[in-house]
Amino acid sequence: MTDIQRLKGFRDFLPTEMEARRAVFARIEETVRSFGFREVDTPSLEPLDLFLVKSGEELVEQTYSFQDKGERDVTLVPEQTPSRARILAGRKDLSMPAKWYSTSKRWRYESPQKGRLREFYQTDVDVFGTDSVQADAEILAVAVEVMDALEVLDAVDILVNDRRLLEGILDAYGIEETEAVMNVIDDKEKLERKEFLEELEEVGLGSEAAENVDELTSISGPISQKLADVKGLVPEGEAAEGAVDRLEELASALESYGVAGEVRLDLSIVRGLAYYTGLVFEVFDTEGDLRAVCGGGRYDELVGLFGGEQVPAVGFAIGDAVIEELMRREGVWPAEELQTDVYVLPVSEDVRGEALDIVEELRSAGNVVETDLKGRSVSSQFDYADAINAETVVVVGQRDLAEGKVTVKEMDSGEEERIKRSGVAERIS
Amino acid sequence: MTDIQRLKGFRDFLPTEMEARRAVFARIEETVRSFGFREVDTPSLEPLDLFLVKSGEELVEQTYSFQDKGERDVTLVPEQTPSRARILAGRKDLSMPAKWYSTSKRWRYESPQKGRLREFYQTDVDVFGTDSVQADAEILAVAVEVMDALEVLDAVDILVNDRRLLEGILDAYGIEETEAVMNVIDDKEKLERKEFLEELEEVGLGSEAAENVDELTSISGPISQKLADVKGLVPEGEAAEGAVDRLEELASALESYGVAGEVRLDLSIVRGLAYYTGLVFEVFDTEGDLRAVCGGGRYDELVGLFGGEQVPAVGFAIGDAVIEELMRREGVWPAEELQTDVYVLPVSEDVRGEALDIVEELRSAGNVVETDLKGRSVSSQFDYADAINAETVVVVGQRDLAEGKVTVKEMDSGEEERIKRSGVAERIS
Repeated sequence: MTDIQRLKGFRDFLPTEMEARRAVFARIEETVRSFGFREVDTPSLEPLDLFLVKSGEELVEQTYSFQDKGERDVTLVPEQTPSRARILAGRKDLSMPAKWYSTSKRWRYESPQKGRLREFYQTDVDVFGTDSVQADAEILAVAVEVMDALEVLDAVDILVNDRRLLEGILDAYGIEETEAVMNVIDDKEKLERKEFLEELEEVGLGSEAAENVDELTSISGPISQKLADVKGLVPEGEAAEGAVDRLEELASALESYGVAGEVRLDLSIVRGLAYYTGLVFEVFDTEGDLRAVCGGGRYDELVGLFGGEQVPAVGFAIGDAVIEELMRREGVWPAEELQTDVYVLPVSEDVRGEALDIVEELRSAGNVVETDLKGRSVSSQFDYADAINAETVVVVGQRDLAEGKVTVKEMDSGEEERIKRSGVAERIS
Repeated sequence: MTDIQRLKGFRDFLPTEMEARRAVFARIEETVRSFGFREVDTPSLEPLDLFLVKSGEELVEQTYSFQDKGERDVTLVPEQTPSRARILAGRKDLSMPAKWYSTSKRWRYESPQKGRLREFYQTDVDVFGTDSVQADAEILAVAVEVMDALEVLDAVDILVNDRRLLEGILDAYGIEETEAVMNVIDDKEKLERKEFLEELEEVGLGSEAAENVDELTSISGPISQKLADVKGLVPEGEAAEGAVDRLEELASALESYGVAGEVRLDLSIVRGLAYYTGLVFEVFDTEGDLRAVCGGGRYDELVGLFGGEQVPAVGFAIGDAVIEELMRREGVWPAEELQTDVYVLPVSEDVRGEALDIVEELRSAGNVVETDLKGRSVSSQFDYADAINAETVVVVGQRDLAEGKVTVKEMDSGEEERIKRSGVAERIS
């Protein structure tokens, strides 16, 4: 006898939990598919080199990376983007735009904590092959519709920004430590105002510049309206002007998609990863006590790193852990209960053949049907029918059968009725 | 620029391939669920120790096992049974029988070859908590129905045996090298008769005993009929008699499930793994040129190894690689093509808003709808609509709209019709 525990940060899901999870994943998938996104599947284990291209050594430290028995350096995938880039680099024949999604497992070697696990599911949604603002708008529209399908749209803020806007303004301010400043901005929501200013000064900003960055990154509201404020801060002829124009186009495209009212401009959104080249966005719970629910952006230069041609891309990812916390908090996590259409209950061993005939008829008609596998008593069988949440129990007994009948019991109401054996299939459907 | 290949024995699946795979997995899942099997999910990475309990060092050699950054010895799961046993050992409160299934990825570090990959999908189906012959019959019935749902029932042989039967007879023959003989029998289908006899003699059998084993393991046919032949070989009062009785009960239970005609007794079926304690079965393609499609059996002692109480169990597993080969050979692999209900085609930029309104209406009605994201010409858009296999294209043009109309084209027939803008949703549904 042994007692082996599962690894920390990993999860088991029993059938009742899986019923709820299936419902949630199905809603995400149906929404994404309705926009014409197509499922792809890629290996869970990839060469380590694939992740070094994009992330560098530092991020790789947070992965499950090891040497396999053939001495290859390999990594359990923490995300699917590099695998997609690998495919796109090798398949110039694919019709574009390629609209891909996948819901699958990912792994990160990080300290497990609330909303952050070592093994988790993530849905990645990308449009490859176009740098159009329509694609940006579609990705945002999908994210909005997913939140709506999960009944949490009112419980989240969907915040967008354009990295080039911030970079351009910082540049105009004469601030040269762009990356360092971006990293401080990325942490802003976790910091007090005083700490934020101090950290900005630590990376080299004067106190006035730090105040400016604080003011700038406090801009948050309807895109078109807030862009008016921002414009005053953008020196003419600067690169940031392109970003302003793009955000104006985005606002208009979001109107067309009918989701403009759900999306806000927020200049503190920069996303940690350096590979975003334009639009960035994040979805937070309005109460602000959870990690980001979902995030994404445009990354036009990444695929090119994997093989010659540039393939512009925009996408987002949503993990399973934070959305579950949010849905539970909002009271919209689906019921964790089994669903069974019918339990067929043989009263004694000699009617088992007839009971199985009824099972077969009902299954063929598309029902989920269980019957006794243990030779149990009638009352034990009713307990089991309760445990599996059966809607209807068909009681098959010798005396009933002698009269060509069976007894049908509706478990919710407790109503019982003796009906003709030959009418069971019709009665259940 | 880099050129990083995916690992050998791993696969990418593009959208067209995924359409077929989704259809196949859905048919397996619907069948299994109709019998009341419930989905579970367990970690892809487990402590190495979990596999040593069941398989020993030798099998672990064929896994992806490594030390994680916290110096834990871990394994990418080659199968889900040990994880299920771990759960059952820790949760005495679960209502029994527990009928569990899962379709998920598994990994083995073996040389990739036809039908054998390093990463593959497998569906595991188990009944835990009863040692009844009804559970054995239900597991076999599920396997039969899965083969039927995949349209390959006529292309396979479903062969059953009982390990105790063979063990009992070998014992009665005075053959003591039972495990070694079992291993030779497991290889029988790959060997010429002469080689088979030689290998039996090598593990210690006399030539007469070897001939007996050859004769015994050549018995194959309808269960009830072949049991009559076997009975003559079973000495009275021996343990093997219990196995004969059990197989007779199984034949009768399979009659009740309506699948007796699909299952044959075959005394050469022993299954490699030593942990089976009764029923064993395998499904082979009738032409005999593929690996086993599916296999399983009863293992009543395994769960007990993980924590005290015995939990009897019977189950089977079906992988994705061999079934795909078989379905392709039989011409029943689903079409690998995208499915799109509608492509909405804006003729020019100024009608995009109206086009997106139509997209939104059609999506809300449950259709998969795509539209232009690249500002492409009408003919490029028609090419794309072809590429995504759109059933219908709704052409939205300025002149049509001025008259309150759009043009609907059915892509299969090429038929076009101008209809009222307001009637689009009704027309498409």
